Amino acid sequence: MKGNRCERCGDSFINSSQSCVCGTSNTLAGGMCFPANSLPTSVASSVIFSQLTLPVQSAWFSSFMYSSAAACLLFSNRTACQSLGNMCVMNMHSSSSINNDVCGLYNTIYRTTAAQGSSQDISYWRTNLPWLYYGDQPGMASQALQNEPLPVGFSFKGAQKNTNIELRAAVYSVRGEFLRWESVGRGNLQLCPDTPTRQQSAFKFGTAYKQSCVLSVSELLTGYPEPLFYDVFLVIQNSQDNRLLAVPLLNANQQFNGQFVNQGSDMSKWFLTRRLMLVDTLSGREKSISSSPVVIRVASDIKIGFQLVPNTQKGQVYPPLMSVAYSDIQIKDPSTQTVTVTFSVEYTMNQEEARIKTDIALGVLGGVAVVHSLLKTASWKRRIASPLIDLETIMKFLVFYAGDLANVFFIITVGTGLYWLIFFKAQLFVSVLLPLPAQEERFVVYVGCAFALKTVQFLHKIFVQLSVDVFFIDWERPRGKTTKHVEGSGETKSQASPVSIWRTYFVANEWNEIQTIRKINPTFQVMAVLFFLEVVGFSNLALRDPSSNLNRSAEEYTPPYSLILRYGVATAMWLCIGLIQMIFFTVFHERFVEDKIRQFVDLCSISNISVLLLSHRCFGYYIHGRSVHGHADTNMDEMNTNLKREAENLCGQRGLLPNSDTQTFQISITNRLRAQYDRIIEPISRRRGPSRLVDATANPCEQSTKAYHTMNRFLGSVIDHAHREMDYIVKDKLLFERVIGMEFIEPLDKSIFYNDDSHSFADVLFYGNEGVLLIFDTLFFCVVDLGKQNFILAAVLTYLQQMIFRLIRNGLGRRNLANKTLVDKRFLI
Amino acid sequence: MKGNRCERCGDSFINSSQSCVCGTSNTLAGGMCFPANSLPTSVASSVIFSQLTLPVQSAWFSSFMYSSAAACLLFSNRTACQSLGNMCVMNMHSSSSINNDVCGLYNTIYRTTAAQGSSQDISYWRTNLPWLYYGDQPGMASQALQNEPLPVGFSFKGAQKNTNIELRAAVYSVRGEFLRWESVGRGNLQLCPDTPTRQQSAFKFGTAYKQSCVLSVSELLTGYPEPLFYDVFLVIQNSQDNRLLAVPLLNANQQFNGQFVNQGSDMSKWFLTRRLMLVDTLSGREKSISSSPVVIRVASDIKIGFQLVPNTQKGQVYPPLMSVAYSDIQIKDPSTQTVTVTFSVEYTMNQEEARIKTDIALGVLGGVAVVHSLLKTASWKRRIASPLIDLETIMKFLVFYAGDLANVFFIITVGTGLYWLIFFKAQLFVSVLLPLPAQEERFVVYVGCAFALKTVQFLHKIFVQLSVDVFFIDWERPRGKTTKHVEGSGETKSQASPVSIWRTYFVANEWNEIQTIRKINPTFQVMAVLFFLEVVGFSNLALRDPSSNLNRSAEEYTPPYSLILRYGVATAMWLCIGLIQMIFFTVFHERFVEDKIRQFVDLCSISNISVLLLSHRCFGYYIHGRSVHGHADTNMDEMNTNLKREAENLCGQRGLLPNSDTQTFQISITNRLRAQYDRIIEPISRRRGPSRLVDATANPCEQSTKAYHTMNRFLGSVIDHAHREMDYIVKDKLLFERVIGMEFIEPLDKSIFYNDDSHSFADVLFYGNEGVLLIFDTLFFCVVDLGKQNFILAAVLTYLQQMIFRLIRNGLGRRNLANKTLVDKRFLI
Repeated sequence: MKGNRCERCGDSFINSSQSCVCGTSNTLAGGMCFPANSLPTSVASSVIFSQLTLPVQSAWFSSFMYSSAAACLLFSNRTACQSLGNMCVMNMHSSSSINNDVCGLYNTIYRTTAAQGSSQDISYWRTNLPWLYYGDQPGMASQALQNEPLPVGFSFKGAQKNTNIELRAAVYSVRGEFLRWESVGRGNLQLCPDTPTRQQSAFKFGTAYKQSCVLSVSELLTGYPEPLFYDVFLVIQNSQDNRLLAVPLLNANQQFNGQFVNQGSDMSKWFLTRRLMLVDTLSGREKSISSSPVVIRVASDIKIGFQLVPNTQKGQVYPPLMSVAYSDIQIKDPSTQTVTVTFSVEYTMNQEEARIKTDIALGVLGGVAVVHSLLKTASWKRRIASPLIDLETIMKFLVFYAGDLANVFFIITVGTGLYWLIFFKAQLFVSVLLPLPAQEERFVVYVGCAFALKTVQFLHKIFVQLSVDVFFIDWERPRGKTTKHVEGSGETKSQASPVSIWRTYFVANEWNEIQTIRKINPTFQVMAVLFFLEVVGFSNLALRDPSSNLNRSAEEYTPPYSLILRYGVATAMWLCIGLIQMIFFTVFHERFVEDKIRQFVDLCSISNISVLLLSHRCFGYYIHGRSVHGHADTNMDEMNTNLKREAENLCGQRGLLPNSDTQTFQISITNRLRAQYDRIIEPISRRRGPSRLVDATANPCEQSTKAYHTMNRFLGSVIDHAHREMDYIVKDKLLFERVIGMEFIEPLDKSIFYNDDSHSFADVLFYGNEGVLLIFDTLFFCVVDLGKQNFILAAVLTYLQQMIFRLIRNGLGRRNLANKTLVDKRFLI
Repeated sequence: MKGNRCERCGDSFINSSQSCVCGTSNTLAGGMCFPANSLPTSVASSVIFSQLTLPVQSAWFSSFMYSSAAACLLFSNRTACQSLGNMCVMNMHSSSSINNDVCGLYNTIYRTTAAQGSSQDISYWRTNLPWLYYGDQPGMASQALQNEPLPVGFSFKGAQKNTNIELRAAVYSVRGEFLRWESVGRGNLQLCPDTPTRQQSAFKFGTAYKQSCVLSVSELLTGYPEPLFYDVFLVIQNSQDNRLLAVPLLNANQQFNGQFVNQGSDMSKWFLTRRLMLVDTLSGREKSISSSPVVIRVASDIKIGFQLVPNTQKGQVYPPLMSVAYSDIQIKDPSTQTVTVTFSVEYTMNQEEARIKTDIALGVLGGVAVVHSLLKTASWKRRIASPLIDLETIMKFLVFYAGDLANVFFIITVGTGLYWLIFFKAQLFVSVLLPLPAQEERFVVYVGCAFALKTVQFLHKIFVQLSVDVFFIDWERPRGKTTKHVEGSGETKSQASPVSIWRTYFVANEWNEIQTIRKINPTFQVMAVLFFLEVVGFSNLALRDPSSNLNRSAEEYTPPYSLILRYGVATAMWLCIGLIQMIFFTVFHERFVEDKIRQFVDLCSISNISVLLLSHRCFGYYIHGRSVHGHADTNMDEMNTNLKREAENLCGQRGLLPNSDTQTFQISITNRLRAQYDRIIEPISRRRGPSRLVDATANPCEQSTKAYHTMNRFLGSVIDHAHREMDYIVKDKLLFERVIGMEFIEPLDKSIFYNDDSHSFADVLFYGNEGVLLIFDTLFFCVVDLGKQNFILAAVLTYLQQMIFRLIRNGLGRRNLANKTLVDKRFLI
C-alpha cells in the first residue's frame, strides 16, 4: 500500500526469491533483486571530470550502475542496457584495462553477449545494447570516415539542387527509455537560442555555420534537470536508397588508458564513438540524485564536419564527422557562472592541389618577371648611357623586379580570388569547397607581398617623375624694336622688343595641371566600387555559403566572410569598373569631350613652344610646338586669324618634318648633346645647391635667366639642325622595340628621334601609368579590407591615399618644374 | 479498480448523494456531482471565432463549463473558478446581456459572491475568483491608465540609471491550477524565437522593440496542446515600495453586446481586462477534447505601451497598457498554414507641445524670411536700376523667398533633429520620448520642403552665375614698332607691335578654373561624413533606444531607426565637418598653402589685366589689375626683376587709388555707363544670335574683335577718369549696407566703387556661395537617406550630384566666359 493505492511486488523480487524480499544469495541494487552473475559486484561509481581533476562519487552511478548492468546482462532488459550506455557516455566513453568502471561493464556485457548477433547488420552494434564504439582498436576512424562516400551528390543550383542536410536523432532519456525521433535542427543540438530560420541554415550544405553564445549556468541547471542522449543519423534519400546512416562522434574528452586520444589531428589514433549528450547536471550529484550537482558537464563545442571526396564532379562527400568537446564546470555560484557554447558546421576539401598549382604559377611567372626586369634594367642602362654594372644598377633591377613581382602576386591572388568566387559560387554540382579561415593565411601573405612590392614600384615611379628634366623651348623671335630711355643720359636707345614670357607661363601652367590627371576618375572609381559592393550588395557574394543572392534579409543567418572571396569580389569590381571607365574615357570622353593630353600638344603648337622632357640621362620625349604661323606672340585678331587659317588648311602642317603631322617623339640623345645640356643648365641647378665661393659676385638669378636664354637658343638650333656635331635623325620605332620598351640602336653619332603618335611622353605623368596606379589603389583598398573587413573604411582610406599622393605629386612636381624651367612657382597655379 | 490500483469515489458524489452514483436530483457535470443551484442548467458552450464568423461547439466548454461554474459557486473551489475564468478569456472576455455564456456565468458568480470581499484591496478582484474585468462600465480605462503615475522614475544614465522594466506573470493552466510565477522576458510572451539578449531588450525602458515572425501552424499545434494563462504584473521596486502592479489588458477581439469596443482609439469606450493567453488550440476542438481543433486562436499582436507623464522631469510614466489582438485560424492544412505574430513595446509622449512650438518657430521665421526676401528683391531692383514692379520682380521675389524659406525649414528641421538627438539620448531622467514613426511624417514633409526650395535657390544661383558679364581689360600698350612687308609693293611699313593676347588667355584660363572651387573640399566632406557615420558608428545614435554607444555588437537587438534622429545625426555631421573644413581652409590652408582667389587677384596685377564683372545690369565687381610696373608683356628677365622689385617694396602699391592696396571693388554703375557698355558689346553678343540681313557683308569675327578693342579702350579710359560724364567715386561701404546687402545711394551722376577687401566678387563663383552649396548638399544627402535609409547610397549619390553640377557649372560657365570675353574656348582648359 502506498497512499490509497495497493502495489504489487517487483517482478525481479518474485523471480529471484519468490517473495517480496530479496534473499541474501541475491544482490539488491537499484530497487531490483538480481541473482548471482558474472559482473564484478564492487563497481567504481565515480565520474572523472578530467578538466577539474576532480573525481566525483556520483549518486546516480552508485544507485543504478550495477543494477542497469545486471538487468542488461541477465534479463536483456533494453532500457537497462540503454541506461548503462548512457552512463558510459556520461563518463566520456572513457575506458581502460580495469573493467569495473561503467564503460568497462558495458564492454564486458558487449563481449559476453556476442552470441546475440548484431543489430541492423552493423557489426559494432550488438542487439539489445546501445551502439557506443566503433570497435576497440585504433585506426578504425579512417575506415569509417573515408572508406566510402555518401551515396548522394550535393548540388548548389539547377533542377537537381540539393543542399539539404537532414539529420535525425534517436532521443533517449537518462533512464534508458527511447523517447522519440527528433529532426536535428530545431535547436535540439544548438544550445544557443536563435530564430528557427537562422538555426536551420546550419543544415544547408556549403554554408559555413557558427553560432556561439554565453549561457548562464543557473539557467542550464533549471533547464536540464536530466540529460537527454542523442544517437544522430544522417538521412540518405535518393532514388535507390532511403536509409539512415549513423554519424560517428569524436569526443575530445574521451580517455583511453588515461590518454586523450582524440585531441590530436592524427586520425589513426582516434576512437570514434556514438551517442551524444548536451548538458549533464545529473552525474555530478554526490549525495543524492535530487541534491544539487557539484560539477556539471556541457557540450560546449559541437562541430559537424563534411569533407569533399577528392576530384569529385558530382558533389560527393564522405560521411560527416561530429566532434564534441565537453566543458566541466564546478558549481560555485550558478547565478554568476557562465559557459560559452559553440555549434558549427564546417566543409573542407583537400587544398593541397590548389596550393601546388599556385606554387607552380608563382614559380613560372616569377621566372618571367626576372627576365622582364632584366630587360627593363638593360633598357634603363642604355637610356642612361652607362655601360657599368654598379650598385645603382642592382638597386634599379631590384626595384623593377619588385614591380614585376608585385604584378605576379597580383595576378595570382586575383586569379585565386576569382577562381574561388566563380567555381565555388557558380558550381552546379559541388566540386570545390572554400578553404577554411586558417587555410587563407598563405593567401593573405601573398596579397601583402603584392601590396608591399607595388608600393615600392609606385614610390619609385613617383620619385622618377619628380626628378624629370623639362625645358620649354620658345621659338618666338622678336618682331620689332622698342625705344627705351636710358636713364640719366636722356637719349633713347632702340632695341629688340622683348618676347613675351606669358606663352611659356601658360604652357608651364598647363603642364603643371596635367601632372596628376589620370585615365580614369579615381574618386568616381572608389565611389562606384563602394556603391556596387555595399549598396547593390556584391559584398554578399563573399559570404561562405552557396547563395549568389545580392540581397539578404536581416532575418537570415549571415555566415562569416571568406577573405579570399572578399578579395575576389573587391578586385573584380575594381578591375571591371576601372576597365569600363578606361573604355569610356578613351572611346568617348577623350574623343568627344576633352583630351587633356592632346590639348596640351595643341597648345604647344599654338603657343610656338616646344617641350623637351628628359626622363633619363640620354632618353626622353620631345613635343614639337613650333607654330606654323611663325609667330604666336600677338594680339587677338592675329591669333583668331591664325586659328582660322589652320582650320581651313591654309598653312603648313605642324609636324617636325615637313609635310608631317607628327609632333611627339621619343628621343635618344647622344652623350655629347647631353653633356652640352648639362653644361648650360649648370647655373640653374646650382641655384638650389650650396653657395660656392666661385662667382660669388654674380647674381644667381641673372645667371640663371642667362642660362635659360642660352638653353633656349641652343636647343632651338639643335632642333633646327644648326649644330652639325649634334645632329639627329627621325625614324620610326620597330614594333619589337615598342613591345619590349628598349631601343636597339645606340645614339653614338647622331641623336635619334622616334616618331611617337601615342603621346608616350605621358609616361612621366600619372596619365601614362594608369596600370600601376589602378593596381596600387586596388591593392590598397583590399589590404585595408583584409585587415578590417570593412569596405567603407577601405573606400575612405583609399580616397585619402589618392588625395595625399596627388597632393605630393602635384606639390613636388610643381617645385621640380619651377626649378627646371625657371618659371616662377607663382605662375604654376 | 483501475488496472492494478484501487480508487476512491469522488468527494462530490459522496457529498451530494452519499454514494458513488449521482442521484437524479443532482446534476452530473465534468465528472462531478452537483446539487441544484442558481446557475442556468443549459449553458451556451459555443466559442465565437468572430474573424471567421464561425461558432464552434467546443468540447472543452461543454465538458467543463457548467461543472467549473458550479464548483466555483457551490464549493468556492479556486481551481474551478480559475478554470471558468480561463474559459471566459478563451471566449475573448466577450459579454452581453444573456448570461448563459461563459463570461455571463463568471459575471453571475462575481455578482453573487460580492459578500466574499475583494482580494488584495482591489475592488475588481473578488476573493477566490480570477480578476478579469475592470468593472462593467465603460470609461474606467482612463481612470486605470492615466490617474496615477508609477511610483518609480526611469533614468537613462548616471548613478540612478533605471531602464529596467520588470514584468512578472502568474501562470495558470487551462484547468485552473496555479503553475508558477514567471519572469516575463524569457520568451514567454514573445512567441518569436530569438536569442535571450535580443528578447530581453524588449524590457529596457526607452528601447523601441518590435519583433515579428511567421510561425507554422503545425508547430503551434504540437507546441501548445493546451493554452497557458498569464496574469501580468509590473514589479515596482523603490525605496519605500516593493509591490506588484497589475498591468491592464486591452483585448481588441473583445465584444460587448456584439460591438468591438476596444478597436477604436477612443479610450472612453474601452473595456480593460486582465489575463492573457498566447495560443489556444483547445477551445476549437469540436468532437472531443483530444480531437484535433477546427480553429485555433493565436495572440498575433501583443503590444506594451508606456506613456510619459506630461512635463515630467523625473522619468515618470503612467501604468503600462498591454494590447493584444488575436487571430483566428481555421485549420485546413496545418503544415502549409502560417501566422504572423508580432510583439512590440512602444513609448509615447504627448507630442502636441513640440508641434505647437515648431509651428510658432515656422511662423516667426517665415515672417522674417518674407522681410528678408523683400529686402533682397529691393536690392535687386536697385541693382538692375529698374523701378517698375513687373512679373519678373514677382518671380525674383518668389525665388528669393524660396531660398529664405528653405533656410527656415532647414533651421527648424536641424533644430528639431538636434533637439531630439540631444534631449532624448543625453537625458539623465527621462523627460522626452521620441515621436513614433507615424508622428514623423510632418517632419519628413518639412525636410522635403527645405530640399525642394533649396533646389530652386541653387538652380537660380547657378543660372545667374552662368549669365554674368565678364570683361578682361588689358592695360598693356604697345611698346615698339614692327616692320611689316606690305605684300606686292615690296616696301616695308612700320606699325605698333601687337600686344600679346596671352596674358588675357592666362587670366581667362585661371578665371575658368576658379569657377567651381569651393571653400571646402566637397568630396572629402562626403567621405568624412560617411566615415564618421558608418565606420566610427555615429549612425548608431539614430537608433530608437537610450544607448549612446557608437559600437554595437551584432548579438544585440537592433531597434529600428528614427528618421528624425538619422536626420539629426547626418546634418550634425555635415555641418560640423563642413565648419571644421571651412576653418581649416580659411585659417590654415589659404594662409599657408594656397588661396586661389587671392592668387587670381595677384595674377591680375602681375599680368596688367583688370577684370570687370557685372552680375546685375548696374551692379558688379571690379578687380583692379593694372601692373605697377607699367608693362607686363615682357620676357623672363624683366618679369623676374619686376617681381623682385615688388617683393622689395621698390615700386608703388597695387591699389586703384594712389597709395592704397585695395584692388577689389563692388561697383554700382550709372545707367549711362551701362548703356554705353551694351552698345559696344552688341556685336559680340549678336554673334550668337540669329543672323540678320544688316551687316551681312561684314565679317562677324572681325566685328567682334573690333568691339573687343573698343571695349578695352573704353573701359580703360573710364577707369582712368577720362570720361567726365561717366566718372566714378571710390568710397567705403557702410556697415549697415554690408549687413543687409543693399546700397543706399543710387548711382545717378557718378558710378560708385565700394572698397571691398573681402573679395566678394567670389559671389559669382561657387566659392562665394559655400553656404547655399553646403546646405544643398546636406539636404540632398538627407533626403536620399530619408528615402532609402542608407547612408552609403546617400554618399554616393551626393558625390555624383556634386560632380554633375560641377561639370554643368564648369561647362556652361566656360561657354559664357568664351562668349563674353571673346577668348577662344580652346584656351580655357
